[in-house]
Amino acid sequence: MKLELESDKAGYQQRPVTRHRGADAAGTTDRVIEEAPVALVFNGISHAVMMVTPRDLQPFAMGFALTEGLVAKPADVFDIEVREHARSFEIDITIATEDFVQLKQQRRSMAGRSGCGVCGIESLELLDLQPPRIEAAPLRTALQPAIARAAAELGQHQALQRATGGVHAAAWCGADGDVLRVCEDVGRHNALDKLIGHLALDGVDMQNGFVFMSSRASYELVRKAARMNIPMLATISAPSTLAIDIATEAGLKLVSFCRQDGCVEYT
Amino acid sequence: MKLELESDKAGYQQRPVTRHRGADAAGTTDRVIEEAPVALVFNGISHAVMMVTPRDLQPFAMGFALTEGLVAKPADVFDIEVREHARSFEIDITIATEDFVQLKQQRRSMAGRSGCGVCGIESLELLDLQPPRIEAAPLRTALQPAIARAAAELGQHQALQRATGGVHAAAWCGADGDVLRVCEDVGRHNALDKLIGHLALDGVDMQNGFVFMSSRASYELVRKAARMNIPMLATISAPSTLAIDIATEAGLKLVSFCRQDGCVEYT
Repeated sequence: MKLELESDKAGYQQRPVTRHRGADAAGTTDRVIEEAPVALVFNGISHAVMMVTPRDLQPFAMGFALTEGLVAKPADVFDIEVREHARSFEIDITIATEDFVQLKQQRRSMAGRSGCGVCGIESLELLDLQPPRIEAAPLRTALQPAIARAAAELGQHQALQRATGGVHAAAWCGADGDVLRVCEDVGRHNALDKLIGHLALDGVDMQNGFVFMSSRASYELVRKAARMNIPMLATISAPSTLAIDIATEAGLKLVSFCRQDGCVEYT
Repeated sequence: MKLELESDKAGYQQRPVTRHRGADAAGTTDRVIEEAPVALVFNGISHAVMMVTPRDLQPFAMGFALTEGLVAKPADVFDIEVREHARSFEIDITIATEDFVQLKQQRRSMAGRSGCGVCGIESLELLDLQPPRIEAAPLRTALQPAIARAAAELGQHQALQRATGGVHAAAWCGADGDVLRVCEDVGRHNALDKLIGHLALDGVDMQNGFVFMSSRASYELVRKAARMNIPMLATISAPSTLAIDIATEAGLKLVSFCRQDGCVEYT
């Protein structure tokens, strides 16, 4: 297949932020990686929605079709068209009839819904991009000292990460940043679910502390935290545009690039 | 709910490896984080399969039920039982009738299949843990120099990562480790799909080079690479047990902790 590749986007956006360094805080802007829902539609039938950085979307569709075994070979993909909506993208993929027949048979034997909330749902209409506003009062704390304390303490609690590498940690911190409980998992959303499960089983008040993650801030972490009325999510690595948007709408404070000597506030 | 928490597992396994440091290679063992398919079954109906580190599975199920909105409150979860199978786990969760009625209604309006191949499929029976053996000949290369070169060159190609942080890179490397093409994305499996899509569109022979990822080596990356008959996957961060198992079965060489001065061979 010889595809006419569309001219591509940057893949990031400029966002206003407050940058904390020690006792100083200053308003500035930051480049933030884009994350957007992308629906993959094969011969007119919606197949899956993935959270993707909206660049290289035509090659993405080709690669997805091949690596998921939806087409036997590149030549079975006849056309790939990308359509941009307000907050999402749709990729229309035209594939060979024999592949499509097989795909339809496969689909008949599979009925289900997504695990992590987004990745895997069938169509954009099913996507929940509007979490309810959280009911928690803003956390009463001095932000930078709390983050610095959490950042200093987290490492001591990452036993699995020390043993093996490649593991995410989700920590529950008191308002002052004291690390009270840590769960680890290969998946960041699993680590958070384990943590929240422990807190719920112990009857911990989730409105009087914050979650500190060793990972980046993705959409699903914000959504999960907001659903529990947790007032603040702090992460060591970067946020995505969608994480910032959803956090802003939900009224959840999002702080990323959290280190002992500084952090960046995105909401 | 007062749950009797089961005694927990380590969360990692010892595996034999070959450790390369400069020109030296030595057999040793390494602790590897566990990654296993975990089916979440609500009131007898399979809901989702997640790839999870099998520790804290009861709190995980509680957290998942809450953060995905499947129950309204912790007290609506009556029981959580974990069953271990040969290569997977099942968690049976008993929830309140009113939550289950709502869940069944929600499910009727959703029919689909997973995006990234695992996360989100409905039941363990649908899980494909046996990729076909790849047809590629082993890569003819001096392993350590090729990895060192790829590790040295990758950073120059990570423009999005430099701009924003929090981004994964998937690189296509020649047999000698020269970085020929790089794609970036918030999701590591998306970055790989974009890369493979570009290679397929350009008609590149994927049997004469290797994929180098800035991320950890997870199950789905191995599965996607094996499906394209790519002979070797190299990653900067750690592998999971399942990634090693699937790579071994597929005949794909898996090398992780890839740095300029060394790497660890897991297959």
